Amino acid sequence: MNILITGGAGFLGQRLVQALLRKGTLVGPTGAPESIQKITLLDVVAAQMPHEPRVEIVAGNIADVAVLRSVLSEKTSAVFHLASVVSGQAEMDFDLGMQVNLDATRLLLDVCREMGTKPRVVFTSSVAVYGGALPDVVQDSTALNPQSSYGTQKAIGELLLSDYHRKGFVDGRVARLPTISVRPGKPNQAASSFASGIIREPLNGLEADCPVSKDTKLWLMSPEIAIACLLALHDLPSEILGSNRAINLPGLSVTAGDMEDALRRVAGEAVASRIRWIRNPKVERIVGSWPGAWDTSRARHMAFPADTDFDSVIRAFMEDVA
Amino acid sequence: MNILITGGAGFLGQRLVQALLRKGTLVGPTGAPESIQKITLLDVVAAQMPHEPRVEIVAGNIADVAVLRSVLSEKTSAVFHLASVVSGQAEMDFDLGMQVNLDATRLLLDVCREMGTKPRVVFTSSVAVYGGALPDVVQDSTALNPQSSYGTQKAIGELLLSDYHRKGFVDGRVARLPTISVRPGKPNQAASSFASGIIREPLNGLEADCPVSKDTKLWLMSPEIAIACLLALHDLPSEILGSNRAINLPGLSVTAGDMEDALRRVAGEAVASRIRWIRNPKVERIVGSWPGAWDTSRARHMAFPADTDFDSVIRAFMEDVA
Repeated sequence: MNILITGGAGFLGQRLVQALLRKGTLVGPTGAPESIQKITLLDVVAAQMPHEPRVEIVAGNIADVAVLRSVLSEKTSAVFHLASVVSGQAEMDFDLGMQVNLDATRLLLDVCREMGTKPRVVFTSSVAVYGGALPDVVQDSTALNPQSSYGTQKAIGELLLSDYHRKGFVDGRVARLPTISVRPGKPNQAASSFASGIIREPLNGLEADCPVSKDTKLWLMSPEIAIACLLALHDLPSEILGSNRAINLPGLSVTAGDMEDALRRVAGEAVASRIRWIRNPKVERIVGSWPGAWDTSRARHMAFPADTDFDSVIRAFMEDVA
Repeated sequence: MNILITGGAGFLGQRLVQALLRKGTLVGPTGAPESIQKITLLDVVAAQMPHEPRVEIVAGNIADVAVLRSVLSEKTSAVFHLASVVSGQAEMDFDLGMQVNLDATRLLLDVCREMGTKPRVVFTSSVAVYGGALPDVVQDSTALNPQSSYGTQKAIGELLLSDYHRKGFVDGRVARLPTISVRPGKPNQAASSFASGIIREPLNGLEADCPVSKDTKLWLMSPEIAIACLLALHDLPSEILGSNRAINLPGLSVTAGDMEDALRRVAGEAVASRIRWIRNPKVERIVGSWPGAWDTSRARHMAFPADTDFDSVIRAFMEDVA
C-alpha cells in the first residue's frame, strides 16, 4: 500500500513517517494489515531526512490540483492530512489560512473522490473548533463554536470530511488533537506555541515567556501519544466510529501553573525559574477560548492510548532530545 | 439605503420584497431606521412582479463574482442571502449544491468584505444542520451534525458568516428556520416539500403523498412568521446577538399525523382524506435526521414572533390564496 502524508516536512509528519517505517504495515482496503510500499511526504518545502527507499519527498503547493494529482494514485489507500497554517498565522493572514486550511482540504477530498477508490483519510483537527460559553468538560455533543479563523477552518474541514465520508467518496476520520506538548525545535506562530516553549526553552538554559495566566487551563498531549493515536485511528474498523467521524482524543488537563510545578519537580527550581510570566492579550484571547478538558470516554472505549501525567511527558521529552 | 435579496425570485424572496416595500424602512448603519431607496432582487431567473420603481430585478449566476459585484455597492447596507439549492437537489447533485450553497455564500461574503462597509448580512439556515443522536429538544449548545449535503453546506455557511463577522468584514446574522409550511405553489425538490404539499394539494382538491410516517415529528413555521423574523433579525442591535450569531427561530412541533388532524378540523374529512400515506425511505432518512423541536427561549427573550398553533397556520394559508 501507498501512503500520502501532507505536511510531511512538519514535526508531526516527520514523527509519523518514522513510526510508519518502524511499524511496516497499515490496515488496507480489505481490513487486513498490508505492508507499506511507499510513503509520499508532501510539503511546501522538501522534508529533510536520511535516504530511505520507501519514502518519496515532494515539495509543492497543496492548494495546486496538479500537485495533489501527482502525489495520489489508486494505490494510495491511506492519507494523513496534517498540513495546515497554524492558529496565530491564520489569524494574521486570513486569506492564506482559508487557502491552505479550507481550500486545500477540499481539493484533497475532491482528488480522492475522483480516484473512486475511497481511501482512508485521517484529518487532524484541534481544540480550537470549540469556544464561547463551554461546559467544564466538553462532551461529544458540544457544539463547535470556533473563536478563531483557524478553528473555523478546522471545523469546516471536519464537516466536509464527514459529508464526503457519508457520500462514500472517502473513508474519513477526524482526530481532534489536544495541544501538543512538548514539541522540540523552535517557537512557531501557533497561539499555543508557548505550551511547548515554557518547558523546552528552560530545559535548554533559555528564558521563555508564558503569555497566559497561571490558572489558564490547557488540554495537552505528548507527541508520542499523538502519533500512536493517528495510527490507531487509521486502523480502526470504520463501523466503530459510526456516523460520528470525529474523535476527541484523550489529553491531560493542566494549568500553566501546573506545568511550571511539573518542570520544577522534574528539572529543579533553577530551570523552572526561567519561565517569565508576561501576559499577551492576543494569545490569551485565542487560547482562553479553547476547552481545558473534554470527555474522553468514547476514545477510551475505543482503546486509544493516553498520557498518564505531565511529569512523565517532560521526562520523555528530555530523553528524546538527549 | 439599498438592499440586496439573493434568491429574490423565490417564494421567501418575493414575500420579503413585498414586506420591505410595505414597511418602507430598515435599520441602517447608524442604528436608526432609514427609508429604503432600492431593493435588488438577484436570482438565476428574473423575478416576475409588477413594476415598482424601488425594485431592480437582476437575473444572474450568484456564483459569478462579476454578478455579485454588479449588485452590491457601498450603498448596500442590508443583504438577505436566501439563495440556495434545496435539500433533495443538493443530495442528488453534490457539485451544484457545493457551488451554490457553499462557494456562492463565501463569494458573497468576500465581495461584502472588499467593499469595506460592513453591511448587515442575514443568512437563512435550517433544521438540516442538526442530525444524528439528538436530544428531544435541541439546545443552542447542541452540536451541528448534518446528515445531508444541504445541511453540511448550511452549517459551513454559518461558520463562515460567524468568522467574517468576528473579523469585522460583515455584520452577520444567521436565521435557523424551521421547515416553512404552508408554501403556496408547486412541490419542489426539498425533502420537506410534502410538509406543505399535504395541506396545499388537498385544499386544492388534489391527492398528496405523505412520504413519512404519521408519528414523524416536524418543526414548522408559517411564511408570514418567517418573513417577520427575518426583518426582526436584521433590525436587532448587533450586541444583543453577541458572539453567537445564529438564532434558532421559534417553530411549532407537530407530527405528520397532527397535521392531518388539523387539516380535518379546519377543512373537513373529505379534504383530509386526500392525504395518501406512502412512505419513501430516501425522504424519511433525511427528514428523520432533523430535530422535531428546539429550545426557543433565546428567540423569545429577543421577542421574535412565533406561530400559535397549526390550525391557525392552515387558516391563514386559506385566506392568503383565496
